[in-house]
Amino acid sequence: MATHNLLLLPGDGIGPEIMVEVKKVISWFNAQGGDTFETDEGLVGGSAYDAHGQAISEEDMAKAMAADAVIFGAVGGPKWDSVPYEVRPEAGLLRLRKDMELFANLRPAICYPALADASSLKKEVIEGLDILILRELTGGVYFGEPKTITDLRNGQKRAIDTQVYDTYEIERIAKAAFEFARTRNGKVTSMEKRNVMKSGVLWNEVVTATHKNGYEDVKLEHMLADAGGMQLVRWPKQFDVIVTDNLFGDMLSDVAAMLTGSLGMLPSASLGAADPKTGKRKALYEPVHGSAPDIAGTGAANPIAMIASFAMALRYSFEKVAEADMLDNAIANALAKGLRTKDIASEGSKVVGTSEMGDAIIAEL
Amino acid sequence: MATHNLLLLPGDGIGPEIMVEVKKVISWFNAQGGDTFETDEGLVGGSAYDAHGQAISEEDMAKAMAADAVIFGAVGGPKWDSVPYEVRPEAGLLRLRKDMELFANLRPAICYPALADASSLKKEVIEGLDILILRELTGGVYFGEPKTITDLRNGQKRAIDTQVYDTYEIERIAKAAFEFARTRNGKVTSMEKRNVMKSGVLWNEVVTATHKNGYEDVKLEHMLADAGGMQLVRWPKQFDVIVTDNLFGDMLSDVAAMLTGSLGMLPSASLGAADPKTGKRKALYEPVHGSAPDIAGTGAANPIAMIASFAMALRYSFEKVAEADMLDNAIANALAKGLRTKDIASEGSKVVGTSEMGDAIIAEL
Ligand SMILES: CC(C)[C@H](C(=O)O)[C@@H](O)C(=O)O
Ligand SMILES: CC(C)[C@H](C(=O)O)[C@@H](O)C(=O)O
Repeated sequence: MATHNLLLLPGDGIGPEIMVEVKKVISWFNAQGGDTFETDEGLVGGSAYDAHGQAISEEDMAKAMAADAVIFGAVGGPKWDSVPYEVRPEAGLLRLRKDMELFANLRPAICYPALADASSLKKEVIEGLDILILRELTGGVYFGEPKTITDLRNGQKRAIDTQVYDTYEIERIAKAAFEFARTRNGKVTSMEKRNVMKSGVLWNEVVTATHKNGYEDVKLEHMLADAGGMQLVRWPKQFDVIVTDNLFGDMLSDVAAMLTGSLGMLPSASLGAADPKTGKRKALYEPVHGSAPDIAGTGAANPIAMIASFAMALRYSFEKVAEADMLDNAIANALAKGLRTKDIASEGSKVVGTSEMGDAIIAEL
Repeated sequence: MATHNLLLLPGDGIGPEIMVEVKKVISWFNAQGGDTFETDEGLVGGSAYDAHGQAISEEDMAKAMAADAVIFGAVGGPKWDSVPYEVRPEAGLLRLRKDMELFANLRPAICYPALADASSLKKEVIEGLDILILRELTGGVYFGEPKTITDLRNGQKRAIDTQVYDTYEIERIAKAAFEFARTRNGKVTSMEKRNVMKSGVLWNEVVTATHKNGYEDVKLEHMLADAGGMQLVRWPKQFDVIVTDNLFGDMLSDVAAMLTGSLGMLPSASLGAADPKTGKRKALYEPVHGSAPDIAGTGAANPIAMIASFAMALRYSFEKVAEADMLDNAIANALAKGLRTKDIASEGSKVVGTSEMGDAIIAEL
């Protein structure tokens, strides 16, 4: 029986509340007598800033680097709106992504059948939707230098952000996309703005070359990112895997998440490269939603995205596919029984709080 | 009676076909005996490249600079997919925007009542929708330098794009947003990614300062651009005027256009600053949709966005508000009678071609 080390970083807002539910799920798995999950806990975001003036401490960074997987809640809130840029809550998350080299961000956009009515889209457009957005996570405008605001001393300031992509960065995310597509419906749509951006030109070129180099069994399609946003709204079921850069991925995955009507439900995984010796990857799992400071502390938060993020950890970090499926099914069953947190409540459903939803999912396990 | 000089740039794909319908509309207005519109015509995009190896010739650029308004069709198509980056079809449009200093791009996203069913969104979400996306059009990552692909000589290339914004660029588009909001529902939502981009930090700062400086009668709200994309899908009617940068505006306006179910119907205006002496602005009017090379030459293209773009010219370049309203109503009436081009056809509608639709709109005038 193996032991797996998890670092839990609840973060801010509803982060700590939904992390409590994941801890229950972890205890449940530990009680089954298979592999053991050992957990340690740290601070990130505003709560880390409050404790020691940084969005994540060196000690917690070291723990994250050493962990088998990081389980991350959410960061940010109006309380920290005016802290210096370098120590704003998001800086903790961005440092984790960069230092752990988590270049591949998996954002499944699925429509839970029980929630198909909750979408602003017509039921037939999103029912059965199951797409995977693969977002490059360690490059592009998020990390490129220069990234500055300069006082031009004539009443004017100049802000600069730099989008940088090297061949290898595009190649590794393209490979990941083709490999995921093989386990799904065999189609990849690559999105960029090659008609305006040089990084789009290189992106298109490298994805095309990577495809020719051993992945021609997968269908590859290119789409301009603005047209891609349109097509996501028009007919999202045309997609299987979408691969795109850090900033477009941020926008497009949020649009896709909202389409499903299941925003509070969607998990994500951020993966590094497999270690050539051990085959292990660094990994961080987090819900797609944010820290929802407006409902923090009310016990109303939806823990499903957080729990589903742990299911992704089972699947991608620990190769526990059966357990991951079991946990995903437990979520779907709790929903099918009509249980809803407030954010997804509809007529005839039974509204429950964070902890009742967590318990109900465990009861289904 | 004044004479107004229009430069028509039909461009590629369906551009020339839909421009024919605008010419009919212009002739109709000329026949009414009010102001006269004189038209000249030029080449842009792939057709300009085919004629003289550039995406727009110096001669046509000079005509555009001198015209009272430019009426632009659409550019691009697979035929020019591998022409050099500098002379690709889009370069013609980008040069027009930059050299004419058309910093303010108005993209109304309205839902034509007759088409509320055509959207992939639920009717109640988009019925009556009327928002204005104001996109900064001459700055940001579209034009910032360096914009390069460098061969690193180790099998790797590096692509760089640069997002640059100066205070004055943000200030003038913010002012425009507040002024448009005053003629509408008095609310502006500014979108950026200040949690990741320095240009987002400056954007937020300058919009806030501009608001305090004489526009506090307008309600101002800030939203992260990714959350903005979500909110557009969730409940677009919460917005009145959205102001955002060039790249976010590209993405968000396409998503908004698709929401309405009226993509082939939406016009846009790109405006420069008012001349301090004459009060005149340089201006270019173009449909939001592209050149649709797949249906070019079939007579099936929808001319409505192109004709509605001319209505915007009447409104914003020639202060002919009554005439603009008349033309907009003529479009709505033709639709209300059940006439549809193929792209917007639905059960029970009468499918007509490009030229029949143009004629029907003129008949309504
Ligand atoms: C919190 C923020 C820095 C982050 C991002 O922009 O990547 C978030 O929006 C996300 O999508 O994970
Ligand atoms: C054609 C292209 C250069 C253009 C843009 O990206 O601005 C188009 O998408 C638009 O929105 O007008």
